[in-house]
Amino acid sequence: MLKNGDLIFIYHEKSSFLVSFYDGISIETHKGRLIIKNPVEYGDIVYTNIMEPFIILRPTLSDLMMKVKRKTTIIYPKEAGLIILELGIQSGSKVIEIGTGSGSLTILLSNICGENGKVYSFERNEEHLKIAKKNIEKFCKFNNIEFFLKDPVNENGFGIHNIDSIFIDVPTPWELVDYAYNSLIGGGHIGFISPNIEQVQRTINKLENLNFTRIRCFEVLTRGIRVKKNLTRPFDRMVAHTGYLYFAEKSNIKSESNYIIDYNI
Amino acid sequence: MLKNGDLIFIYHEKSSFLVSFYDGISIETHKGRLIIKNPVEYGDIVYTNIMEPFIILRPTLSDLMMKVKRKTTIIYPKEAGLIILELGIQSGSKVIEIGTGSGSLTILLSNICGENGKVYSFERNEEHLKIAKKNIEKFCKFNNIEFFLKDPVNENGFGIHNIDSIFIDVPTPWELVDYAYNSLIGGGHIGFISPNIEQVQRTINKLENLNFTRIRCFEVLTRGIRVKKNLTRPFDRMVAHTGYLYFAEKSNIKSESNYIIDYNI
Amino acid sequence: MLKNGDLIFIYHEKSSFLVSFYDGISIETHKGRLIIKNPVEYGDIVYTNIMEPFIILRPTLSDLMMKVKRKTTIIYPKEAGLIILELGIQSGSKVIEIGTGSGSLTILLSNICGENGKVYSFERNEEHLKIAKKNIEKFCKFNNIEFFLKDPVNENGFGIHNIDSIFIDVPTPWELVDYAYNSLIGGGHIGFISPNIEQVQRTINKLENLNFTRIRCFEVLTRGIRVKKNLTRPFDRMVAHTGYLYFAEKSNIKSESNYIIDYNI
Amino acid sequence: MLKNGDLIFIYHEKSSFLVSFYDGISIETHKGRLIIKNPVEYGDIVYTNIMEPFIILRPTLSDLMMKVKRKTTIIYPKEAGLIILELGIQSGSKVIEIGTGSGSLTILLSNICGENGKVYSFERNEEHLKIAKKNIEKFCKFNNIEFFLKDPVNENGFGIHNIDSIFIDVPTPWELVDYAYNSLIGGGHIGFISPNIEQVQRTINKLENLNFTRIRCFEVLTRGIRVKKNLTRPFDRMVAHTGYLYFAEKSNIKSESNYIIDYNI
Repeated sequence: MLKNGDLIFIYHEKSSFLVSFYDGISIETHKGRLIIKNPVEYGDIVYTNIMEPFIILRPTLSDLMMKVKRKTTIIYPKEAGLIILELGIQSGSKVIEIGTGSGSLTILLSNICGENGKVYSFERNEEHLKIAKKNIEKFCKFNNIEFFLKDPVNENGFGIHNIDSIFIDVPTPWELVDYAYNSLIGGGHIGFISPNIEQVQRTINKLENLNFTRIRCFEVLTRGIRVKKNLTRPFDRMVAHTGYLYFAEKSNIKSESNYIIDYNI
Repeated sequence: MLKNGDLIFIYHEKSSFLVSFYDGISIETHKGRLIIKNPVEYGDIVYTNIMEPFIILRPTLSDLMMKVKRKTTIIYPKEAGLIILELGIQSGSKVIEIGTGSGSLTILLSNICGENGKVYSFERNEEHLKIAKKNIEKFCKFNNIEFFLKDPVNENGFGIHNIDSIFIDVPTPWELVDYAYNSLIGGGHIGFISPNIEQVQRTINKLENLNFTRIRCFEVLTRGIRVKKNLTRPFDRMVAHTGYLYFAEKSNIKSESNYIIDYNI
Repeated sequence: MLKNGDLIFIYHEKSSFLVSFYDGISIETHKGRLIIKNPVEYGDIVYTNIMEPFIILRPTLSDLMMKVKRKTTIIYPKEAGLIILELGIQSGSKVIEIGTGSGSLTILLSNICGENGKVYSFERNEEHLKIAKKNIEKFCKFNNIEFFLKDPVNENGFGIHNIDSIFIDVPTPWELVDYAYNSLIGGGHIGFISPNIEQVQRTINKLENLNFTRIRCFEVLTRGIRVKKNLTRPFDRMVAHTGYLYFAEKSNIKSESNYIIDYNI
Repeated sequence: MLKNGDLIFIYHEKSSFLVSFYDGISIETHKGRLIIKNPVEYGDIVYTNIMEPFIILRPTLSDLMMKVKRKTTIIYPKEAGLIILELGIQSGSKVIEIGTGSGSLTILLSNICGENGKVYSFERNEEHLKIAKKNIEKFCKFNNIEFFLKDPVNENGFGIHNIDSIFIDVPTPWELVDYAYNSLIGGGHIGFISPNIEQVQRTINKLENLNFTRIRCFEVLTRGIRVKKNLTRPFDRMVAHTGYLYFAEKSNIKSESNYIIDYNI
């Protein structure tokens, strides 16, 4: 039986909802009203008042990210997965994220870092932070996030040290490179997402000048495939671009070579 | 100062090594012999006997995956990130993986699940399992993996229940779908990677017939970008295909619609 | 000065028109009525009654293809260019096309083959053929197309021989492979576009059994790039799939090897 | 029966040759010596002295382009097809190409323009032009190309007018934009290929300032598909980048809006 507070992903081919369950919860769908009463289990099918079926699923991490209430663009799962891997984020990691935005990536970081890890999340826009906090309250089970309503550029840095990994998603990432350098542990990881190539160029130039090494940049494309008898083929349209992902590691002193690499993962 | 047993990623533009550090460790590189002695820190540059610089970095999760000793094909980071997100794997998750292969994905799962999580890993080839275990011994810090040297098809299933997520990477995935169904918790996640479309077709047909829902399939492409002053452009070549990724969730009863979705993440 | 009958591509960022010019032609746009009177030249800017500018351009071949009136899906320029190259179609070629559809590819073939070439175009749907003929009347300057309102499957083939190249775009292409074989010159080229992989599999199986050689299949993706100061990046979305393109050449006798090649062009 | 001078594409899965046939021609292959004697036809299989089969095919346009002897990078078929379509090149067109390079695109242009068309090809490197001329002598059947051994930048332009379409493939394309403007007919087409984004940015900036309109930029990717029973999938690797393609049309006066468009073909 579901317990109050359980996150449920209510799924229908045409629409889906991510909510905290409570006994008797009522949801307006495009196919009528859905009232969910115990006894009900994950995996069960429930019906609206016009008998349209919805399935009670457990949310994936992608679902958590995509279902945040948002006033900003968000990081998408196709990039988020590689961010985790390239920043070496795992159970117990200590990471800085800037900016919080709608909290989509924050939720992922929190769930991966777990109770022994820590997420420091910076946002300078008060309204965005408010929305992000609400999203996180709903979707996160770990109490491992600390928020900062401030702009590190004005505050002369993050004021936090010995951080394993830092992820930066702001319009002027080059302004944060030296603050990030100071906060990172030796050999630690930094990552960025930027939509425009000029942002990437300017930031990578800063990384090269500031003892970062193993600079790598790539883009990620995913394409859905329809697998149906005699009708198997990719879906018609796809996302062509969300942003360039780029990463580097902190070296203690400047190395001679500039180390921009053809990175194939 | 580095401690004995610390994992170090010794990086040079043209080659890199992932090893357990011990004081005085000696490595033969393409640019001479490298002897690393304390005091040395992550982020430091060390020199070979012919004065070629290498940097001591912390490995990313991608590095751990790519540096396993291997006798099999491995899961690549570009797919692994999305596997984590689509299977909802996080700190504390309980997951089944089959087959272990060289242990590349096992290492990732272990690092994400952490000390409160659990990874059950099945492999039927004894030699592969032996190599995988060695890789994991070197690269994993969590003691959360249980290995099984057996083929679930012959053993009539996994013999484990209430699992959050299952990932299957074998040549005949369709044979494991009903065993996976029995081991999964309601609403739990299943994922696959298969190189050939016929494998996908046959397995998805099985998923549809066996109460799995929200079936989605996609492929992931990454493309490296060279960011250099006046020479910015994608690198010349890229990986065109490793495998199709496909996922579904367990429904307790059969739903009427077949729920193959255009999944854009 | 433009002459009556000149094809003009009337271009505005938000909409465009391809028409035959005549002095005083009037066009309703989303930005008012446009009346075009001589003296006017290609390259001139003309204004609607609400002073919105449109430019008088010469149509590209892509424009001719995209501006046909259509009741069917059409071949897109991204595929059409490679069809021309892979089928070796050039000034003077003799080609068969089936089916005509809306005549989009027919127009291209006619313009490439020129006055010394010949295009035989088959269509079994009378209404489609009628529309195609109208499109071609408007857009083609060469008198080198012969239409056939018939289905070669029922007619026991094309009834035409010594053809350089054949292009087939029908739902059941495998039914036409042996007729195509009979119509092609030795060493001649055959090409197909099919949306579903099962169509490709079935047709390629037929090609292998019927003395076709050098079988190659690929897909084409194009991605638009926005080049703007400090805002340079790919556009957000792209076409993920229109169809698989596949080609082969006619061998006079069966060759032992099956010759499916990794074709990188 | 083949005639002396017939172009034959001698095909084997592992290697292929494009040569002018003469009776008794002898070719050294990786599988022994091949001597081809009449009577032989296009489509026939011939055998080397160790009985390895090769097939006598007609070359496609892609084959002509790929088989040139080269000292430069060449335009590839995946881009060349779209160049033809976007520049509106067809039977009878008058086009300028700069630079000639190895003559790969020149061959295509010549074959498409045909006997009523004209190709003006500029190259400033004497050795490249010599190689290109040899390639063209072998592969072209139309006598419609005029070569210029000169750099239009030094010569103050092309010295040719009323040209339908111009294609520019040089390292500093922005230097040629105003000369191209002068040579083009009103509403005529201009196209470029450049490997680096900075070249594109600089050239497009020039196009915007010089009355060119409808500026569009895109990249083309092709991916080979292996279609084999139970083993159908994309081939492992692909070309990730050759160059950015960009196009515009000549407007007689400057238009207000800058007209950079999301171009999806």
